[in-house]
Parts: sequence; structure tokens; C-alpha cells
Amino acid sequence: MQNLNKDQVGYQAPAAILESVLYCDDLETCGHFYEQVVGLRLASSLAGRHRFYRLRGGMLLLFRSEATANDVIKVNGQVIPPHGTTGSGHLAFSIEPESIGSVPERLKSFKILIESEIEWPNGGYSIYCRDPAGNSIEFATAKLWYG
Amino acid sequence: MQNLNKDQVGYQAPAAILESVLYCDDLETCGHFYEQVVGLRLASSLAGRHRFYRLRGGMLLLFRSEATANDVIKVNGQVIPPHGTTGSGHLAFSIEPESIGSVPERLKSFKILIESEIEWPNGGYSIYCRDPAGNSIEFATAKLWYG
Repeated sequence: MQNLNKDQVGYQAPAAILESVLYCDDLETCGHFYEQVVGLRLASSLAGRHRFYRLRGGMLLLFRSEATANDVIKVNGQVIPPHGTTGSGHLAFSIEPESIGSVPERLKSFKILIESEIEWPNGGYSIYCRDPAGNSIEFATAKLWYG
Repeated sequence: MQNLNKDQVGYQAPAAILESVLYCDDLETCGHFYEQVVGLRLASSLAGRHRFYRLRGGMLLLFRSEATANDVIKVNGQVIPPHGTTGSGHLAFSIEPESIGSVPERLKSFKILIESEIEWPNGGYSIYCRDPAGNSIEFATAKLWYG
């Protein structure tokens, strides 16, 4: 712990999520969805391995699971632990209430099927589609959880 | 779109992630890790299907993939799309710099193996372990991405 803060305190539970992850087989095709359709800002990428996106307070990491399940990348002599899943993951983006109404048209303009739309009992609203890898992607108002 | 805001605007890219997801086989065992070891606040749960945790600005949803890949839950007549993965997922929690030094001791006190510790070139610090389902869980300072 070379950079351990001198004013250290005891363990505190994490207040936020710093990295959320989705997996895919084809980074180019999936990247097009997150960059062109969803409109995320690409922070960095490594061909064949990952594309990383910057959001407020947390990153979305898109990995090709075939790569990350098997690669051995060392940083300062330490290995980044392998990971990788198969199947349909899930993630929800937070959309401002005044913008949620524009999501269906946005998806349709890219010929992306809307799989479901749910108005939740508490007034939150969710719109679901699939990314090219089959992950269930939700556009939701924060009221769903933080109403 | 019953609750469409009257002052609607065009599409705006999401600014944040509202739901991050991990999957497991055994919710009780995995729940113990997230609640007792990590210290997250349980927001809601459904035995055999999910345990949801509340963090600042975003939720962590822990699902039993065998349930969510096959169940059909309707809300206001609309289906929640199925999803579920197998294999080792990944997620990073944001830990305050003054608290990151206490993470190794915290994990050791629960007999959880530290798989790797990385000091990143930009000064960020990450500590990796596995949850009981084998997901790669990282405790990191936000400087890693927002330095």
C-alpha cells in the first residue's frame, strides 16, 4: 500500500459503483450500439479486448469475454484477475424524465426493437431493448429507485 | 408513455448507470458477502430470484441467473425481459482514498483471499477478490478513472 493515505480511517462500505461491466463477442458491432445509438463517450479501447465508456461517477466497461477470460495483463507486476461471462447480461441507464419520451423514437431510428416498456407503480418508467450481443439494456428514469 | 413530461426534450445520452448487475447460483451465500463483508444496504429481495442493493446514484442487482433467464414477471401487463449469464462477471466498488487501506484487513477478517492489488500509473489503487459465485470484485479509488 504505497499510496496509503496518512489520515487513514477504518473500513467504510462503498458509496458507489465505479465500474459496471457487460460482455460481448463482437466489440465493433456492440461499440456502434453504445456509441452511436446510446451516445456514450468512448474513454479508451483495445482492439479485440475492450471498449470503455465514461459516465457520471462510474464507467461502463464492455469486454470481449473470450479475451478477458484468458488474458494475463500485468500492471506493476500484478495480474488483473480474469473474468468473462456468456449469456444475456443486464444494465440500466439513467435517463432524465424530460428525455425518456424520446427514447423509443431514438431506438426506432436505428431499427432497434423495443422489447418492453414498463410504467412502474412508483411512477418510474423503463424502456427495454437488446444490444447486439443480446444483453438486456434498459433506459429508465431514476425515480424507479430514487423516487 | 402515460407519464411523459410535458416539457419534453429530444434524446439525451444517459449521464449515469442506474442498475449494475451480477449473477450467482446461491443468493444466500452471495448475499452474505455483499451485506456482511462489503457492507451494502439491502433494498429489497425475493427468495430464490434476487437481492437488490442501494448505493449512491445506482443500484447493484444480484440475480440468480437460473431464475431470471426463465421467469416471466409482468408489471402493468408488460413483461420484464429475461436475462442471465454464467461465468465470472466483474464489478468495481468506489472506495474513499482514506478507507482503501483498510480493505485488505476487512477481507482477511472474513477469510477472503486477496487475488491481486494494483497501484495504477495514475495513482489509483485497486484490490481484487472473488465473491462466492466467482465474480471478480474490485475495491478501487475513483482516481483510477476520475483522477
